[in-house]
Amino acid sequence: MLDTLETPCLILDGARLEKNATRMRAHCAPRGVILRPHVKTPKSVDVAKIATGGRPSTITVSTLAEADHFARAGFDDILYAVGITPNKFDRIARIAGGTGKTIRLTVDSVAMAAAISASGLENPVLIEVDCGGHRGGLPADAPEISDIARHLGPLLCGVMSHAGQSYASDRLDDVRAVADAEVAAANRAADRLREEGFDVPIVSIGSTPTVLHATDLSGITEVRAGIYLFYDLSQFGRNICTLDDIALTVLSTVIGHNRAAGNLTLDAGALALSKDIGANTFLPDAHYGWLCDTETLQPTGLAVNAVHQEHGTVTVADPVWYERLPIGPTIRILPGHACLTAAGGYGRYHLTDGRIWPRIDGWG
Amino acid sequence: MLDTLETPCLILDGARLEKNATRMRAHCAPRGVILRPHVKTPKSVDVAKIATGGRPSTITVSTLAEADHFARAGFDDILYAVGITPNKFDRIARIAGGTGKTIRLTVDSVAMAAAISASGLENPVLIEVDCGGHRGGLPADAPEISDIARHLGPLLCGVMSHAGQSYASDRLDDVRAVADAEVAAANRAADRLREEGFDVPIVSIGSTPTVLHATDLSGITEVRAGIYLFYDLSQFGRNICTLDDIALTVLSTVIGHNRAAGNLTLDAGALALSKDIGANTFLPDAHYGWLCDTETLQPTGLAVNAVHQEHGTVTVADPVWYERLPIGPTIRILPGHACLTAAGGYGRYHLTDGRIWPRIDGWG
Repeated sequence: MLDTLETPCLILDGARLEKNATRMRAHCAPRGVILRPHVKTPKSVDVAKIATGGRPSTITVSTLAEADHFARAGFDDILYAVGITPNKFDRIARIAGGTGKTIRLTVDSVAMAAAISASGLENPVLIEVDCGGHRGGLPADAPEISDIARHLGPLLCGVMSHAGQSYASDRLDDVRAVADAEVAAANRAADRLREEGFDVPIVSIGSTPTVLHATDLSGITEVRAGIYLFYDLSQFGRNICTLDDIALTVLSTVIGHNRAAGNLTLDAGALALSKDIGANTFLPDAHYGWLCDTETLQPTGLAVNAVHQEHGTVTVADPVWYERLPIGPTIRILPGHACLTAAGGYGRYHLTDGRIWPRIDGWG
Repeated sequence: MLDTLETPCLILDGARLEKNATRMRAHCAPRGVILRPHVKTPKSVDVAKIATGGRPSTITVSTLAEADHFARAGFDDILYAVGITPNKFDRIARIAGGTGKTIRLTVDSVAMAAAISASGLENPVLIEVDCGGHRGGLPADAPEISDIARHLGPLLCGVMSHAGQSYASDRLDDVRAVADAEVAAANRAADRLREEGFDVPIVSIGSTPTVLHATDLSGITEVRAGIYLFYDLSQFGRNICTLDDIALTVLSTVIGHNRAAGNLTLDAGALALSKDIGANTFLPDAHYGWLCDTETLQPTGLAVNAVHQEHGTVTVADPVWYERLPIGPTIRILPGHACLTAAGGYGRYHLTDGRIWPRIDGWG
């Protein structure tokens, strides 16, 4: 089947996806936390429904295009987990008004809380807490958190954090420590607000590593994770998954042999794979992805060593590979960072059983 | 006008684009070479028509989606400058048959030349020569070049090369040496074929730096270049353009201040800017792009120092920037590598005069 597809294209292994989704739900259920899958990874209604167990329910998004698309598809509780600003208020109002779905917003400044309050928007809002990742959010003890809550008034619905620093180590003990610090920071901010008389029904943390490895999720009401649906070499190199968990691959064609230079060329380059090399921090030979057998998905030992816009270059030490990988047939590539690879402009997934599932890329 | 746009989005300065296009045409005309602009950079019919001087004529593409789109838009001589393989033959035939336009193909192996010959395709074909970039192509003296020509027979229309190694230096003398080697390799391959009795009407070289800096284009019939239309910090750092030549910027909103961590956050991250850091080789403070003034496009001295999928993090050494760049208003970002930034999923350009031009992204 795969040999009839035009390349490059995304191949999604439905069985692996189902297994990954089921395992995360089974992880969350006994811990009493709602799973709010982050659909910035799949950007697909079909995948998101598998993540939520069939019903289009509670998800996280990181673009308004996603919010719009998933609200129209019936997802009824959507968290836009990127700081909101006034130039996005009109579209937020149109999405919420047009679909009747709940679009929750995120703020970490008094200025934006005041702007929301003054705007007439009725969307529930979470306050973002910086638990050490130093991207968005306020420290859990920052006095501004109380000021924001006062400005939001009845729109306040909770607090949220994201521990991006969980990717700084491949030792699960370190990941656990980051996760526990994230849980503590989110709970600390929520408890402070409750002590001041605010209702804080949602305490949200997230990232696949911290959800899986936190010692204790007490106090946390929901978790956000996305990459667990697909996994990739970044997660494998950090010991968060096995190779057999990786559900997403890029199908690519061998388009040339440069025997004089010692390499072969693929039609998957910087756009198809992304230039993300974060996997290499803990898997130095990950390069831009691993070539694997099209049927078994076992790694070949070859990697995409360099990328141009549409060309991938594979260093070939043993000339036997020119016989094993002739020009014309396809190979599959295990991606370094599946979120960015999938967003490379494909627009759709080809399932291994032949189904095609659309993606919602971009911001339009 | 810009403050009414939803961010992130691409802003294209039409005056700078026109100037860049005019200058390249003025460079090529007295040298007697046809300019075959590479539309993998703009992926836009509107931009390509400016590049070709108004008439939809001679262009280079690197995806079949581009070939299809530009052929339908009337471009009548299209070179698909990526090695062709049989799983793309059907679409090539549909594009050429459906539009009546010429789609030229590229090969660098006897196997693919034989496959084309056996396929019934009637597309003209160029043989790719490796002039030192060691991506695609055969060395100019490789005996396979003659074998390929024999397999192609009347389909042979020329030779082409691409000197990717022109980006390995910021010294224009080095660029000139690379360009001269590219010219020599392309001419050498063409001359060999002519000595063997083949007709070789096209001798094509390309890359913005080598086209601009070759000492002598004698023997070359056409040149391919794309980034000169937009330019970027990669080209600026390599002394190929000035800052005032850069026509493409990303409009982004300041979405947060993390004073405790010493940074501010933008809604332009890895998808909006790409993770290409090639500009940093010769411009170490390029990071993921430079913040510039929305009106004057003068650099502020700030850069996007880190990117997550939808977040860009800007390190702020002087707290005065929190006053100058409050949360809510927009800034513009000079991109590190415009080809990849523009392909980030935007789908369109916003011209500074309000026009909107669509892009053709992906492979579908």
